[in-house]
Amino acid sequence: MEKLLAEACARIGDLDKEAMSRAQARLDQLLKPPGSLGRLEELAVQLAGIMGTPAPTIKDKCVVVMAGDHGVVAEGVSAAPQEITYQILPHFVRGTSGIGVLARHVGARLVVVDVGVARPVSFSGVLVRKVRAGTGNIARGPAMSREEALQAIGVGIEVATEEVRKGASLIATGDMGIGNTTPSSAILSAFTGLPVEETVGRGTLVNDAVLERKRKVVAQSLAVNRPDPSDPLDVLAKVGGLEIAGLVGVILGAAAHRVPVLLDGFITGAAALVAVGLCPRVRQFLIASHLSQEKAHQHMLRHLGLKPLLDFDLRLGEGTGAALAMPLVEAACKILKEMVTFSEAQVAAMHEDMLLRP
Amino acid sequence: MEKLLAEACARIGDLDKEAMSRAQARLDQLLKPPGSLGRLEELAVQLAGIMGTPAPTIKDKCVVVMAGDHGVVAEGVSAAPQEITYQILPHFVRGTSGIGVLARHVGARLVVVDVGVARPVSFSGVLVRKVRAGTGNIARGPAMSREEALQAIGVGIEVATEEVRKGASLIATGDMGIGNTTPSSAILSAFTGLPVEETVGRGTLVNDAVLERKRKVVAQSLAVNRPDPSDPLDVLAKVGGLEIAGLVGVILGAAAHRVPVLLDGFITGAAALVAVGLCPRVRQFLIASHLSQEKAHQHMLRHLGLKPLLDFDLRLGEGTGAALAMPLVEAACKILKEMVTFSEAQVAAMHEDMLLRP
Repeated sequence: MEKLLAEACARIGDLDKEAMSRAQARLDQLLKPPGSLGRLEELAVQLAGIMGTPAPTIKDKCVVVMAGDHGVVAEGVSAAPQEITYQILPHFVRGTSGIGVLARHVGARLVVVDVGVARPVSFSGVLVRKVRAGTGNIARGPAMSREEALQAIGVGIEVATEEVRKGASLIATGDMGIGNTTPSSAILSAFTGLPVEETVGRGTLVNDAVLERKRKVVAQSLAVNRPDPSDPLDVLAKVGGLEIAGLVGVILGAAAHRVPVLLDGFITGAAALVAVGLCPRVRQFLIASHLSQEKAHQHMLRHLGLKPLLDFDLRLGEGTGAALAMPLVEAACKILKEMVTFSEAQVAAMHEDMLLRP
Repeated sequence: MEKLLAEACARIGDLDKEAMSRAQARLDQLLKPPGSLGRLEELAVQLAGIMGTPAPTIKDKCVVVMAGDHGVVAEGVSAAPQEITYQILPHFVRGTSGIGVLARHVGARLVVVDVGVARPVSFSGVLVRKVRAGTGNIARGPAMSREEALQAIGVGIEVATEEVRKGASLIATGDMGIGNTTPSSAILSAFTGLPVEETVGRGTLVNDAVLERKRKVVAQSLAVNRPDPSDPLDVLAKVGGLEIAGLVGVILGAAAHRVPVLLDGFITGAAALVAVGLCPRVRQFLIASHLSQEKAHQHMLRHLGLKPLLDFDLRLGEGTGAALAMPLVEAACKILKEMVTFSEAQVAAMHEDMLLRP
């Protein structure tokens, strides 16, 4: 499994600078004041760089949701009962959950993977790649072994690779795992050194008493496990989650094939911190879909150097924010490919001497 | 024409409170932590209130672009030559301009109306409802007569009514008119009393010399015309524009049929100020698609009490931001209609005693 990870990291290159400057040059000539499509233009240039072409096209979109359970729920850190992780899976597949509805809305395939659900899963349509039946309680010991973390990353790499093979040119990441804001906060604290007051939020909107308990649990998980921030696998194995590890693999696997990765919120952000720790070049392949209502997400995005596309006060996870942002990413490609230039349109040019030029 | 306006205003009612509370009740029971879809939930409730049903559906979307020219370009306030207003129209229709590409991307019909282009227009696909061939130069006198302003509003009401008749259940507003940030700034100053330093921005990104000139021109337009902020038609006629007047009509005409109006940026924001001045109840039917890079747009949105969906540094107009936000509005309807509740899904309920409840 270590080999799969090493190979994916080795395949991840830099953005294609030539494609980016050709895309930028075309954007500057399109039938509009230069730069007037703002962030769509920035996105278009990034997509050109990722996909290695001045005219990137998104043909096939997919949302990969990794599901896993968390031993730490025994500490009473979530208002949602653990069995929801299991019970909700058929609603993903049937399209009646949040991500089910939104993935269909944006025309994306939804791939649901059991990488660590506590109960045995046999719902048709769910890919079962269980590494273990939920993590250990991070307040008392490690979430999983290093080998299990590598295995779960391997699942993600394989799933991403298979989706790319099927034609995916944009991959969004989603999570399902009751209790998973707790390990995500622990990962954020481990990498940034930020205190739990800054990294632990209300998750499903827990009350003050639960929030207080959650902060103590995260602090305890760091004290008990002493994750080493210079060793991202150590952080992941000790205070992470199986679905988070799976998402690390999806991120690395997609980037290894030059497929842009659309991150969802706080949980996939934690996975991105680990992925960037393992392979710093992967950062350039990431697009932050939204800023979560979970306050600490802003620290994550700052640490990752990413600017979110949406600020919608979402805190559901499942990949819902990432799905919602997919049409924006597609729009960026389309302006580049489908708009004409001033000269193609035979429209009078701007008075360059009146424009502010950088 | 005054009659058409009076009738539209009289038809605009309040939001349907019963539909809103039923929509909110369902949102609170859906398979997700309460409130976790953030702004999508707020939008869903607003749409329920506008459309008068707890399960609003968007079947048919349209973007109405009003085009008109501005005499004030003679003062050298825009870096774009005036003939672009005319020359770009076929590219709207063919789908090769910014809004052409984005309207097609989101599956919206594009309706292009000449309400005041300087040159005679006879492009197939452009609706010609010209009230006059461009406005007067507002730095020297009024943009148009009160009667012409009423006529242009009437054009907008008729176009919106026709689109609703064809089935439109979401109408986005767009503008085309070289020089139209100048009257929009004048309208904003007239209604809010804000100084030109606050209301005049760079438009197509003009340089410092042009910006300075533009500020003087707007100040002069207010001094010469003395628009009366307590009489929105007076403001519109004296320092407005024909496409802005047309958009006032589109906004009022859509709201009169309980169809939500998706505003674009700075120009459609100026139209919204006039529309809300004429009929304060119309405000509840408006959705702000984005915050423009044109700095003064934030003053407009504050004055209108609207929170933008996107912050994308757009400054193109044409309805591009509004088109981009359409899938977000549709998503809000779909979560309400297509997600199941906890009890429908037979999924374990949240531990209410652990949740923070308002």
